[in-house]
Order: sequence, then structure tokens, then C-alpha cells
Amino acid sequence: MSQSITAKALAEMLGGALRHCPPDRPLSEVRPLEEAQAGALSFLANKKYAAQAREAKAGLILADPQADLGDQPTLVVENPYWCFAQAIGILHPEPEPAWTEAPIHPSAQIGPGVRVAPGATVGARTVIAQGCVIHPGVHIGDDCVLGEDCELFPGVVLYRRTKLGRNVSVHANSVLGSDGYGYVLVDGHHRKVPQVGWVEVGDEVEIGACVTVDRGVLGPTRIGSGTKIDNQVQVAHNVQVGEHCLLVSQSGISGSTKIGRYVTLAGKVGVVGHIEIGEKSVVGGNSVVAKSLPPGSFVTGYPARPHREWMEVQAAVNRLPALLKKLRAKGE
Amino acid sequence: MSQSITAKALAEMLGGALRHCPPDRPLSEVRPLEEAQAGALSFLANKKYAAQAREAKAGLILADPQADLGDQPTLVVENPYWCFAQAIGILHPEPEPAWTEAPIHPSAQIGPGVRVAPGATVGARTVIAQGCVIHPGVHIGDDCVLGEDCELFPGVVLYRRTKLGRNVSVHANSVLGSDGYGYVLVDGHHRKVPQVGWVEVGDEVEIGACVTVDRGVLGPTRIGSGTKIDNQVQVAHNVQVGEHCLLVSQSGISGSTKIGRYVTLAGKVGVVGHIEIGEKSVVGGNSVVAKSLPPGSFVTGYPARPHREWMEVQAAVNRLPALLKKLRAKGE
Amino acid sequence: MSQSITAKALAEMLGGALRHCPPDRPLSEVRPLEEAQAGALSFLANKKYAAQAREAKAGLILADPQADLGDQPTLVVENPYWCFAQAIGILHPEPEPAWTEAPIHPSAQIGPGVRVAPGATVGARTVIAQGCVIHPGVHIGDDCVLGEDCELFPGVVLYRRTKLGRNVSVHANSVLGSDGYGYVLVDGHHRKVPQVGWVEVGDEVEIGACVTVDRGVLGPTRIGSGTKIDNQVQVAHNVQVGEHCLLVSQSGISGSTKIGRYVTLAGKVGVVGHIEIGEKSVVGGNSVVAKSLPPGSFVTGYPARPHREWMEVQAAVNRLPALLKKLRAKGE
Repeated sequence: MSQSITAKALAEMLGGALRHCPPDRPLSEVRPLEEAQAGALSFLANKKYAAQAREAKAGLILADPQADLGDQPTLVVENPYWCFAQAIGILHPEPEPAWTEAPIHPSAQIGPGVRVAPGATVGARTVIAQGCVIHPGVHIGDDCVLGEDCELFPGVVLYRRTKLGRNVSVHANSVLGSDGYGYVLVDGHHRKVPQVGWVEVGDEVEIGACVTVDRGVLGPTRIGSGTKIDNQVQVAHNVQVGEHCLLVSQSGISGSTKIGRYVTLAGKVGVVGHIEIGEKSVVGGNSVVAKSLPPGSFVTGYPARPHREWMEVQAAVNRLPALLKKLRAKGE
Repeated sequence: MSQSITAKALAEMLGGALRHCPPDRPLSEVRPLEEAQAGALSFLANKKYAAQAREAKAGLILADPQADLGDQPTLVVENPYWCFAQAIGILHPEPEPAWTEAPIHPSAQIGPGVRVAPGATVGARTVIAQGCVIHPGVHIGDDCVLGEDCELFPGVVLYRRTKLGRNVSVHANSVLGSDGYGYVLVDGHHRKVPQVGWVEVGDEVEIGACVTVDRGVLGPTRIGSGTKIDNQVQVAHNVQVGEHCLLVSQSGISGSTKIGRYVTLAGKVGVVGHIEIGEKSVVGGNSVVAKSLPPGSFVTGYPARPHREWMEVQAAVNRLPALLKKLRAKGE
Repeated sequence: MSQSITAKALAEMLGGALRHCPPDRPLSEVRPLEEAQAGALSFLANKKYAAQAREAKAGLILADPQADLGDQPTLVVENPYWCFAQAIGILHPEPEPAWTEAPIHPSAQIGPGVRVAPGATVGARTVIAQGCVIHPGVHIGDDCVLGEDCELFPGVVLYRRTKLGRNVSVHANSVLGSDGYGYVLVDGHHRKVPQVGWVEVGDEVEIGACVTVDRGVLGPTRIGSGTKIDNQVQVAHNVQVGEHCLLVSQSGISGSTKIGRYVTLAGKVGVVGHIEIGEKSVVGGNSVVAKSLPPGSFVTGYPARPHREWMEVQAAVNRLPALLKKLRAKGE
């Protein structure tokens, strides 16, 4: 959902100064620099993207007074990231949930052969295709779409706008579409960056129990078709998981990271944010991936490195106490 | 649940060739090699079990063309593990859940003094013994059995056929009996190995909040009497946890591992699959147990080793920067 | 909730001997040594607190026969910790949940403008201030208090006596107030230490999905105002988290630990129990904090140490295989 506002009105609300922008320019959405078009507000929060900002097609760009954006339409503010957060709230207000007394909202479209158990709730305008099975205590928000033959086990929660492909299974008490973890520190308070994106799951995906997948900030968090997710995995906002991946139990992926096709993360793996793991890579159990990996990598450790290297280092470390003893005996 | 089929019909469905097996032999279940009897189909997916397969009592064994099983009744197929997965689906079809409009299924047996809160659901043929307390939003599947004086806190989910002993407490939003994580890669797709086992919990067990315990593939995942499980622990399919164990928060146990009696896993411990941890062992926090441990072990680290050894290695590692500096100063 | 009993009756129930205590002294609660007043029972389970016990103001102190408490009123027992656990059960019996057929208990007080979705339940005497939004499938226990403008997403569970400040958001399937993990080994059985405390959350707190926060043993587990907690975080009993902290996904804090203001725990961090992390400290991802940290610390690793030191050690470890090769070449 979004609404429109003029550049001038926005500048007043955010306490900023317009440059190179007609005051009556209408803005109707917030978008990242690379996606922003004429009607979109974007932002430059980090100098290293200044060149990109100078070539962006955004209708208006939030930037701090030091930024040099040439004659790009700019809204100069002290704290562009905080203004970006506020602008999301202004341009993308989240509607109230549209509950009624009926557990299935009258505007929901329930396909033929769908079974909705007692105690489940289905939100407004949600579309559930044929053959789906919705167990007791499942809660599906407004504006969701479920493809054919999905099965949601008890206690599963889909936040608004979650999209599932065909034949997706989600096990008990998993949560798709919760708000991502995004804050900006303003005067000693962590102010929330509104999370108004959604979760998009491909076909033939299976998701275990007590898994959490956050929705994107503005766009989707994506789980590719054929991917299988084990219990208690965490997928942060704007993560893109490719097709046919295996994410084993208790692994976690930080925000905006891209995981290629056929990647395996073994149990308890952690992956930092904003990196890419190339397709067909394998990350050994309990490892922490701290930088991008080329396709076909096989890494282990903390931080993760090529498996052979990790094994060598481990072997060397294990010989270390004996080595120290020997050196000491020689008086070194 | 299982149904019966002839060896010939099964061979046709799986596209395999029968050897040393009467075509009309009835098969009614899938079992591991060591448990399979005359009416059971079993499988050899790994050559190292070939000797075991040659002595198995199974009615029929899935094996690939290279396997040498002597005159054992064999169904020769290209991919025994994938055929095993398909055979589970054929011989152990999972029934649809038997919901009615009533939150408590009319065929459920609820003992005297049991309290079932509003919003809880109880499946078909489930038996709840006297004194149990079922909080709001608990969902108990079909064919479950609860011993006396169990307490299930809000949002707990028991999948079908879960068995709890006496005086078991399960805290909010924990899930027992969800499908284990089992797939076989076929033509680029991770095909599901149907999970048709169950979870069996002894007496006097307490399970924390947001815990997940998967059901076994064919048989039980077991939690022994007197064991206490902390929040957010993961127990994979076919794990056998002994009596009086302590599994501290965020630890995870991979599939088919056996944990002896009085074992303690401290917080965030990971245990790989298919190993045994001997009784009265203690695993220090955040360690990863990568191989079997004898009784009475006290291990720490990644990978876990005897605690003293780990401490020595850690001490040596901490002296390493100074050592390198010294060696460099000496021109080495 | 608590009830009163005489010292003599308590001594008989626990099988102990009174010293320096009038037999008719009334005792109505269990308290730690430093908080206990005239009407309270306390305990000395560890000799190192004997000096503190000799100066305590408790009405009665559980101690073993070897303890020397001078003329303090003492109840001499073989196993003070186990008697302490039993005394909690005697003096602080937990009432049964007060469900009725109505999802909102008639004694609950629901403020103006509060929305309670279908399928949510609200316990006896619970007070929900104006503007709160309670999603479907939320279960709020007895005697809870919610400040203005809280939002509880589907499947959230608040155990009895949970207190939330103003403008607190809790995402789907999180659990506040579940029993802490406390047992005492008696004759080979892990006996439960009854958990009768509660959870107290300040203002402007946001809690992610599938988070667990246990209630204190006797008093509160506290989450300070302005703190933001990511998905799948675990907070154990009696933990005190300061104001404006960031606890990132899959981190876990063990019992009774104190976290100062503005502390950041990155993803998957573990913190042991009974320590203090000074304000404005930052703990790097996947680290394990094993001892107290002064304010402003920046630590990483396993166990966590100053970040620079950890980096040095890591760099040295990575050079180790080459060093060993070189030493071997030189015949050492």
C-alpha cells in the first residue's frame, strides 16, 4: 500500500531543503537507488553509493548536506537514514488488520477442496488455491496468496502479503513475514525503520517448525522453489535464497544476503548480511560465513574458509601445545 | 498405518527387477535392515551394510545393480534410497487429519479431571489420561496418547501419534512430531523421504518453550523419562535421548544420534548425526560433538575434545601472537 | 501469590531442625538473602555466601549442618537447595489457570479502543490499556498488565503476571514468562525448582518472532525500555537486560546475568549465567561471553576477548601451518 505526497509537503514533514526539484512533484513510494523511478523517493545514506546516486532515476533523493549529487533532485536533511525510515511510514502506511467476527474474512477467496480447520483464521482479500490444507490455529494475514496444494501445520503464522507457490509445506509454529530487525539510533533511541515488504516463497518448498522468515523492508524476502528449510532457521529481511537450497537446523542468514542455487548450509551456520554465497556452495556445520563466496565453495570454520585450509589450521593448532613445550625445553 | 502390496506390484511401481523373490509375496511395511521381518521391505543404500543385508530377514530388499546380496530376495533398482522413499509413501500413506467442527473430536477419550481450555483442539482417537491440563491454543493431532497429569501450555502442537508419559510438561509453542528433515536428490530436485514415525516421551519430562522434536522416519524419536529440555532446543528425527538428561537452551541434536542417561549438553551445543554419547557425559557450552564419546566424557570445543586438552590448546593459541613475534625477532 | 506457615510447620514438612527461631514465627515468602525480611525464608546453598547469611534479616535461613550462621534463625537440613525448592512450592503455590468458556475472562479489564481478535484469549484480572491490538491466537495469562498501544502478533503467549510497558510490540509465536530451567538433583532425579516469578518489559520494546523470555524464579526477569530483540533470542530466568540494548537473532543469555544499557549482542552470541556486561559493550557475532565485561567493551571470539586480541590470535593461527612446516624443514 502506498499514498502520494508532493516533494514540498515531504520536505516540510522531514525538515529538509529541496534542491533541483519542482515543489509539486508527486512522490508515491520509497525505493532503493537502483530501482527508483520518477515517482519514487530514494536515499543516499553511505557516501560510497554517491556515484550511483548521481545516475539514479529517482524523483527525489534524501542526502546529507555534504553529499554532492550534482543537479539530481535532492532533499537535503541532517540524517538521511532516519528520514528514509520516516518516509516509509508516510508513503507506505500499514493498514490495520481487517478482522471480523468470522474466522475466515468474507472477502477471502477459498478454492475448491480447501480444508480450513476450526480455530484457523484467514485475512481479508487472501486467496487460497485449491487443495490447500490449513490446520487448526493457523493465522493467515490480509492479502496473502497461497498456491495449490499448500499445507500449513498448526500455529503457522503468515503476516500480510505473504505469497506461497504451489505445494509449499510449512510446519508448526513457523512465522513468515514478521518485521525485519531494522532501527536507526536517533537521540539515544533506536527508532524503527518500518518494514513494509513481504515474503515470497516459490514452489515445492518445505519449511520446518519454529522457522522465522522476516519480510523485506520495502520489497520481498525470497525463498526459491525447491528449497528445503529445517527447524529453527532464521532468515532475515531482504534475504534472497535461491532454488533447491538446503538450510539445516538452527542456521541463520542476516539481512540482504543472497544465497545461490543448490547451496547447503549445515546445522547452526551463521551468515553475515549483504554478501553473496555462490551456487552449489557447501558450508560446514557451525561455521560463520563472513564474506562472499564464489560458486562451488566448500568452507568451514569461524570465520569460514576453504575446508582443507580449516582442517590444516585445526591440525596445526592441535600440535601447538607440544610445540610450545618443545620450544620451551630448548630455552626459546 | 500401513497397507499391503505384492512384491510384483511394488516392483512395477518402482521400476525395478525382482530376484529370488516370489512375485506374490505380500509386503506391508518398510523397516531398517536390522528390524525387517518377512513382511517388510528394507533397503541397502550404502555398500558398507552389504554384509548386514545378506543376513537380513526382510521379505524384500531394495538394492542397486552392483550390490551382491547372494540369494536374498532383492528388488534391483537404480536408486535404492529414492525407491525407499517412494515405498514409504506407498506402504505407509499418511491419513488426512480427521477434523470436525468440534474442537475435541468425538472419538477422543478425555479422562476424569482433565481441563481443556477454549481454543484447544484434540484429534481423533486421541487419549488424554486423568489430570491433564490443556491450555488455550494447544493443538493435539490424531492418535496421540497423554499419560496422567501432563500439562501443555498455550500453542503447543503435538503431531499425530505423539506419546507422552505421566507428568510431562511442555511449554508454550513447542512442537513435537513435526516431519524430520529427509530428502533425496533426484534429477536436481530434493524429493521428500516421507516421515511416518512418531515421538515418544517418557515420564516426568519437562520441555521448554519453542522446542522442536521431529518424529522418526519410520519409528520413534525418543526422549527418556526424567529428561529436562530447555527452550529452543532442536531434536532431529530418530534421535534417542536417554533418561535424566539435561539439554540446555539452543542446543541441537542431529538425526539418529543416541544420547545416554544423565548426559548434559550445555547451551548452544551441536551434535552431529548417527553417533553415540555415552552416559553421564558432559558437553561444554557452544561445543560441537563430531564423533561418538565414551561414557563419562567431559568435552568442550569445536570440534569437542576432552576438556583439559581443549583448555591446553586454548592457552597455547593465546600465547601464539607473542611466540610469532619472538621467532620473527630471531629471524626465523 | 503466597501463603503463610509457621517455622515449626515448615521444619516438619522439610524434615529439618530449628535453631535460634521461635517455632511460631510466621513465614510467608521465599527470598534471596539480600532481599529477605522478617517474614521471609531464605537459604544458604553455597558456603561463599556464609558471611552474607550471618548478616541477613531473613526470618529463617535454610542451611546445612556444617554451616556456621552464629545465632541467626536457621533451619538445618541436609540439602538446603532442595528444601529451598520445596519451600517455594509450599509458600508460593501457583494457582490453576482461571479459564471460562469466554475467551476473554469476565474479570479482565479491556481499555478503550483495544482490539482483541477472534481466537485470542485473555486471562483473569488481566488489564489491557487503551489502544492495544491483540491478534488472533494470542494467549494472555491471568494477572498480566499491558500498557497503552501494545501490539501482540498471532500466537504470542504471555504467561501469568507478565507486565508490558507502553508501546511494546511482540511478534508472532514468541513466549514471555515460561518457566526457567531450574532443577536440583535428588536421588538421581532432576527435581524442579518451582518458577514463580514473572517477566517485566519496559516501554518502547520490540520483540521478534519465536523469542523466549523465561520468568524469574522468585522475582522478575527484566527487559529495559527501548531494547529491541530479534527473532529466536533466548533470555533465561532472572536476566536483567538494560535499556536500549540490541539483542540480535539467535543469541542467548543464561540465568541471572545483567546486561547494561546500550549493549549490543550480535547474532548467535551466547552469554553465560551470573555475570555482568557493562553498558555500551558490543559482542561480535557468534561469540561466547564467559566472564563479566567492563563498560564499553568490544569483544569477539570463543571465549570472547578484546576484539583486537581476537584478531591477532586469529591471524597468528592462520600462519601456524606455514610456521610448522618451516620449523619441520629446519629439523625442529
